[in-house]
Amino acid sequence: MASPARKENLNWHHSTTMSKPTVGFAGLGAMGGGMAKNLVKNGFSVKGFDLFQPLVDSFVEAGGKAAKSPKEAATDVDFFVSMVANSAQNSSLLFDGEDCVVKGLGKGKTFILCSTTPPAFLHELRKRLDSEFNRSDIKLLDCPVSGGTLRAGDGSLSIFSSGPDDHLDEAKAVLECMSGNLYRMGGISNGTKTKTIHQLLAGTNIITASEAMGLAATVGLNTQTVMEHVQQSDGDSFMFSNRAPHMLKNDWTALSALGIILKDTTIVTDTARAESIPCPLSNTAHYTYLQGVQAGLLKDDDAKLVQLYLPSSQGDLVSKMTTADAKMNSNHQISKDTVNDLLCGIHLAASVEGMYFCHKLGGIESRLMYEIIVKAAGWNRMFEKYIAKMLEKESWTLTDCPGAEDVGKRLGEAVKKCDAIGYPCPMASAALQQFHFAGLARK
Amino acid sequence: MASPARKENLNWHHSTTMSKPTVGFAGLGAMGGGMAKNLVKNGFSVKGFDLFQPLVDSFVEAGGKAAKSPKEAATDVDFFVSMVANSAQNSSLLFDGEDCVVKGLGKGKTFILCSTTPPAFLHELRKRLDSEFNRSDIKLLDCPVSGGTLRAGDGSLSIFSSGPDDHLDEAKAVLECMSGNLYRMGGISNGTKTKTIHQLLAGTNIITASEAMGLAATVGLNTQTVMEHVQQSDGDSFMFSNRAPHMLKNDWTALSALGIILKDTTIVTDTARAESIPCPLSNTAHYTYLQGVQAGLLKDDDAKLVQLYLPSSQGDLVSKMTTADAKMNSNHQISKDTVNDLLCGIHLAASVEGMYFCHKLGGIESRLMYEIIVKAAGWNRMFEKYIAKMLEKESWTLTDCPGAEDVGKRLGEAVKKCDAIGYPCPMASAALQQFHFAGLARK
Repeated sequence: MASPARKENLNWHHSTTMSKPTVGFAGLGAMGGGMAKNLVKNGFSVKGFDLFQPLVDSFVEAGGKAAKSPKEAATDVDFFVSMVANSAQNSSLLFDGEDCVVKGLGKGKTFILCSTTPPAFLHELRKRLDSEFNRSDIKLLDCPVSGGTLRAGDGSLSIFSSGPDDHLDEAKAVLECMSGNLYRMGGISNGTKTKTIHQLLAGTNIITASEAMGLAATVGLNTQTVMEHVQQSDGDSFMFSNRAPHMLKNDWTALSALGIILKDTTIVTDTARAESIPCPLSNTAHYTYLQGVQAGLLKDDDAKLVQLYLPSSQGDLVSKMTTADAKMNSNHQISKDTVNDLLCGIHLAASVEGMYFCHKLGGIESRLMYEIIVKAAGWNRMFEKYIAKMLEKESWTLTDCPGAEDVGKRLGEAVKKCDAIGYPCPMASAALQQFHFAGLARK
Repeated sequence: MASPARKENLNWHHSTTMSKPTVGFAGLGAMGGGMAKNLVKNGFSVKGFDLFQPLVDSFVEAGGKAAKSPKEAATDVDFFVSMVANSAQNSSLLFDGEDCVVKGLGKGKTFILCSTTPPAFLHELRKRLDSEFNRSDIKLLDCPVSGGTLRAGDGSLSIFSSGPDDHLDEAKAVLECMSGNLYRMGGISNGTKTKTIHQLLAGTNIITASEAMGLAATVGLNTQTVMEHVQQSDGDSFMFSNRAPHMLKNDWTALSALGIILKDTTIVTDTARAESIPCPLSNTAHYTYLQGVQAGLLKDDDAKLVQLYLPSSQGDLVSKMTTADAKMNSNHQISKDTVNDLLCGIHLAASVEGMYFCHKLGGIESRLMYEIIVKAAGWNRMFEKYIAKMLEKESWTLTDCPGAEDVGKRLGEAVKKCDAIGYPCPMASAALQQFHFAGLARK
């Protein structure tokens, strides 16, 4: 690693005694808008750019300055933060035309990439800055974020920062203002690798919440009771507790659209493919998201994927079942514990897959990755409990996971019950196969 | 379509009354060597090039001429046939350095690409020929092949040819000499699309053969009896009947290495990803192949993947069980019919997936695709029987597949029995989920 990973503990941004650096900012959407306004709120002078004028107007109302082009936003600032949607938009922002960032950003200034992009993209950016644009003076930092819009707005994101240590030191004021948990992951692209591993967990947890709540509703369990039971059990995840309430309220307001997590699972599975790392759970999540796209859900909240699992005429079934009085579907023996077992089994297989992926990608210490996931949106309770027991040995297979056999058996029972009623459970059945491959249920 | 697809029926190459065109040939391996020697045998003057000298020597022994470089092989020939391994090798062959094909190939001559490459690659080649090398005079034909080494050697391959009609007419003598079934698929890249769809079937059939025979051996059935039963039942496929005998003989001679089908499923799943087409069975096959790579099987015959499904100390179990006397494992009720049901269910889900993929890719008529698959190595009996009934309606989901419900139920029983003994069946369980999504087993 280029620099030892460590947690930053200073709270520099709570002090206002020093003069704040100036910042340019591109991408003022749900995440970026919150981040930029939070910088303004904390006394930074920020010039914001977005192609969509209403977002710029909202930023100006919050005290920001409007820039008419990326170049203008980049002129005379110390730091430029990008939170545009993807790698293509970042390339365009930095390099395309006469009004791009490289035409405005001053000598020796810093470009902080906060968007989620593939690890290889960071090296491509550095190369283009150096060779194609002769701008090796520009400092490039790889700082993807996690935490959602609320944390973006109050400056409590997790940020996985990477790049040369002295450049990260210089950018500390800006990075700390945006983050609650600021990690240093080593050389450039390590931040993005960390985010990719994190999104493997987030991406599997999100679809699993739909698979679980869809099951509860389908068999007529009280979905409110099931949700609360899961939250008090090992089946809980940040995503479950965040998404299940949307389903219970039948509220599909796009807080996080399917298209976003689909972009992330695309990066996860692309990266896995490029490195020939088998990631069955991530792949299953990814193609289930694609099935959601085929069903017309691309721009809807990703919680609405639960409708894939429900009869087409009963898209609101999870909500309807909040008043059901059944505690168990007596024909099929599916109870709230079955739902919890299904979540536990999937989460454990995905957690081991995530750590295996981390190990294979290289450059990120397993223990640090563990600490990051546990505090971030990729958290699930199985990860926290079971991965902790595997850190010593560093052998990332279910075979070497203490306690996995019992989890696998309970998952097997849950899948059997789903199959008996014809309930589709692609995540659970893909997970079960991994327990089988590990020989945990072979008699 | 640029030209109406039709089957070529002439057997021009059996006549020797006309003078034969001259041919350059690159890639003299298992497939290409057979194809090139077959051209020589049929009276063509062929200059062969390969980086591996023993392959060139063998070609010269068979009456071919040796070329020291791609340029030399391309000089003064009417047609240049490429059967090198992949798109990277083709780019290099055509364009890299002073000794490449474009430096040798004469004005207005034809480059026939027989390798399997992604559909987008053909358009890239055409563009580079035209713009980068100013060689729009070179005729590019997209002619991937199917059929294995035996058919390569005796000129009975299936060839999916595409490109401008008049250019295909000119190349008829060469193409017919190499093929038993020569199809015209339309404009350039349609040949490669056809091959991609074909490989979706081939790639799912190969791993399914391992999953099925591994099950038979694991529960102690007589594997010889099971194989023969499947061959007389609906569970048969070209790949099953080709690969199962290798397993029975415990013979892992690399007739077709895992690396080859892995390359093909990479193209299938890359293409599906690029078009956002959910292909769960292909994805499951692909990551199971990757698990085979992790297990060290990359260069082994792909039939050896059956070892993924067997206890690690019993890699020869399929062979050992040829003398078993059990007709059914009485504890688990797994019989030769269970194995057949598992094959049928997977093959049907994969067949529908293949036709859906074909439909989404566009440009290939479903009925023609059906005829091609039925005669080629991607064949399975479920495809032949069930897809025939779906051609009229052209709605490529299991829901609209007459008879799928019964197939799904039998698959469900088979998966239940596998799960009960902890036997890993990733293909069967992924297939079952598709039956569930189609609502075929919901009660």
